[in-house]
Amino acid sequence: MTSVQTLCWVGDSPGGYVEMVEQTLLPLDYELLAVRTVPQMVDAIYRLAVRGAPAIGVAAAYGLMLGVQDAGGESANEVLRRTEDCATTLAAARPTAVNLFWALDRMKARAARDAAAGANGAGIVSGLFEEAHAIYHSDQDTCRRMGDIGADLIADGNTLLTHCNAGALATAGMGTALAPIYRAHEQGKRVAVYADETRPLLQGARITSWELMQAGIDVTLIADTAMARVMSEGRIDAVFVGSDRNARDADVCNKVGTYAVALAAQAHYVPFYVVAPLSTVDPSLDSGELIPIEERPAEEVTCGFGKRTAPEGVRVYNPAFDVTPARLVRGIVTEVGLIEHPTMAKMEAALRAGGVEFQSRPRTTTP
Amino acid sequence: MTSVQTLCWVGDSPGGYVEMVEQTLLPLDYELLAVRTVPQMVDAIYRLAVRGAPAIGVAAAYGLMLGVQDAGGESANEVLRRTEDCATTLAAARPTAVNLFWALDRMKARAARDAAAGANGAGIVSGLFEEAHAIYHSDQDTCRRMGDIGADLIADGNTLLTHCNAGALATAGMGTALAPIYRAHEQGKRVAVYADETRPLLQGARITSWELMQAGIDVTLIADTAMARVMSEGRIDAVFVGSDRNARDADVCNKVGTYAVALAAQAHYVPFYVVAPLSTVDPSLDSGELIPIEERPAEEVTCGFGKRTAPEGVRVYNPAFDVTPARLVRGIVTEVGLIEHPTMAKMEAALRAGGVEFQSRPRTTTP
Repeated sequence: MTSVQTLCWVGDSPGGYVEMVEQTLLPLDYELLAVRTVPQMVDAIYRLAVRGAPAIGVAAAYGLMLGVQDAGGESANEVLRRTEDCATTLAAARPTAVNLFWALDRMKARAARDAAAGANGAGIVSGLFEEAHAIYHSDQDTCRRMGDIGADLIADGNTLLTHCNAGALATAGMGTALAPIYRAHEQGKRVAVYADETRPLLQGARITSWELMQAGIDVTLIADTAMARVMSEGRIDAVFVGSDRNARDADVCNKVGTYAVALAAQAHYVPFYVVAPLSTVDPSLDSGELIPIEERPAEEVTCGFGKRTAPEGVRVYNPAFDVTPARLVRGIVTEVGLIEHPTMAKMEAALRAGGVEFQSRPRTTTP
Repeated sequence: MTSVQTLCWVGDSPGGYVEMVEQTLLPLDYELLAVRTVPQMVDAIYRLAVRGAPAIGVAAAYGLMLGVQDAGGESANEVLRRTEDCATTLAAARPTAVNLFWALDRMKARAARDAAAGANGAGIVSGLFEEAHAIYHSDQDTCRRMGDIGADLIADGNTLLTHCNAGALATAGMGTALAPIYRAHEQGKRVAVYADETRPLLQGARITSWELMQAGIDVTLIADTAMARVMSEGRIDAVFVGSDRNARDADVCNKVGTYAVALAAQAHYVPFYVVAPLSTVDPSLDSGELIPIEERPAEEVTCGFGKRTAPEGVRVYNPAFDVTPARLVRGIVTEVGLIEHPTMAKMEAALRAGGVEFQSRPRTTTP
């Protein structure tokens, strides 16, 4: 096993809890955090103790379990009400993470289905427990499948660049953007990685470089500002990044800074790949321009790391994400295959292949 | 006066010293540093206590004075030898800063000229003192002239983006990239600025935002990663940056990250202006690709915020500069005028207009 275990459910239900790597302490300290209540899970998601779209989905599903696991003695209606309340609370933790809503919707749908089939409170709770575990295991399988598909894009001796952390620590499995790298490494290919440090929260410096070093993969850390220079020096064969949310037209909403990487990759004819499961696609969004961008506190920029680095009172703009238009994306690696030069039609075909339900609509708002 | 005083000579000669803002302490502390010896000046330049191409030129000229001011009783040959030694020592402080060499060459030429005209040791020292002051005053005049020319590119209500610090704190005067902004502000135009924080050394966060706030100019600090997003949101009317070194073909070597800003500006049809005096041009370099790029210590990236932000032992690549190709530059503002869509021919014409001596050469290496 080349990658770390980000989060898991410990014990049975009722009485179980979630154990997760406290990622805000990396890379200096490796600590496990026990999360026992819904508010603790909201806090963990908001503080980025757990982060990365797929891991947030798993955290949300298990988070909901924390809120309902002791309700087995209640009526079916009471369990449904609790499920709804917990989902609403958890959904507010990160407004951009579509996997959060996706996982919560899946949990709610399971509860409703079981209730409609006549399950009592205990039966619904037990079904939710099964569903949360299914989300967890499905994330692990998805990562490995994307790793296998993406590894075919990596030749022996390649050097790749990545932004933020879409690695094992972003999922319940071996990661999204880093999964092809782990699989290529397991296949015996020599592969090296440049990791953008990824301001403001330094996920690349703190997390990506740490987990790649743990796996014995050759990693070089750079400031985000050095990314275009590194490409101009011919050091990079391909870019692999994750995604927090893909629009139906294949626009990619990912950690702020991704778009600049895509522009530099285009300028240097470096292929830019996005590795993201179908659960990352929000079929209700025709275009990335419609994705709401989370703004985070000024302090992340002005005093993120133990000392203040900007004047008191300076105004700050701190968008957490940006949108890379589909035309800059060479391919999206999903669990059902590689979507090369992605378009809306190809995205919809992939959703169908993956069995994802979505509404077909007339295309009045996009070309 | 809208801008701060970065460095000046205090007292007479011999017995004088250089007083400068200790820029590594900004924005938390404002302290003046007294520099009394050549090694102290080398240290100040290397540590970036004084930084910015024009300010480094002035610091080098005054630094040389520190080494020769007590040699007035020596022979002309001894003063020439000391001048040469001090220049060699100072030139090693920052390998990329062409203004450093330019100022030292100008000082050496003055000493040689005075010696050839029969000056004794005291006469040469006195001539060097005059020359250093002339470099200082000429920098102030140059900044103001570039400010006036550049201010014509700024309309009332414009919002500009800048990278690193090419402000008053980078010169002996009102700055290069920020001079047009100061002049536009003085002219009563409403002008706002987005400042990239500029990792790894955070000159934008620490220095640019500080000096713009001191001058009462509306400034918003962003992480470098947010720059392309900010442009995609239509917030930026023009980019103004400085330059550490311009090649003869108008390629621009500036703080790492500038190139990515230029690529994003191009993608969003935002004009990208470079404000740089003719002393920044290195006519010996036919192309920016020939400019050697200074690599700085890993610690700037791994522990730049007062605490370690990356794993122990991680490999780091930390180039301090990058090269923006001339085709991405809408115009270069110099003290002799605006060079629009700059080419080698236009650069040479500007050098001639500015009375800068350079060798004409057949163009075998560039188109």
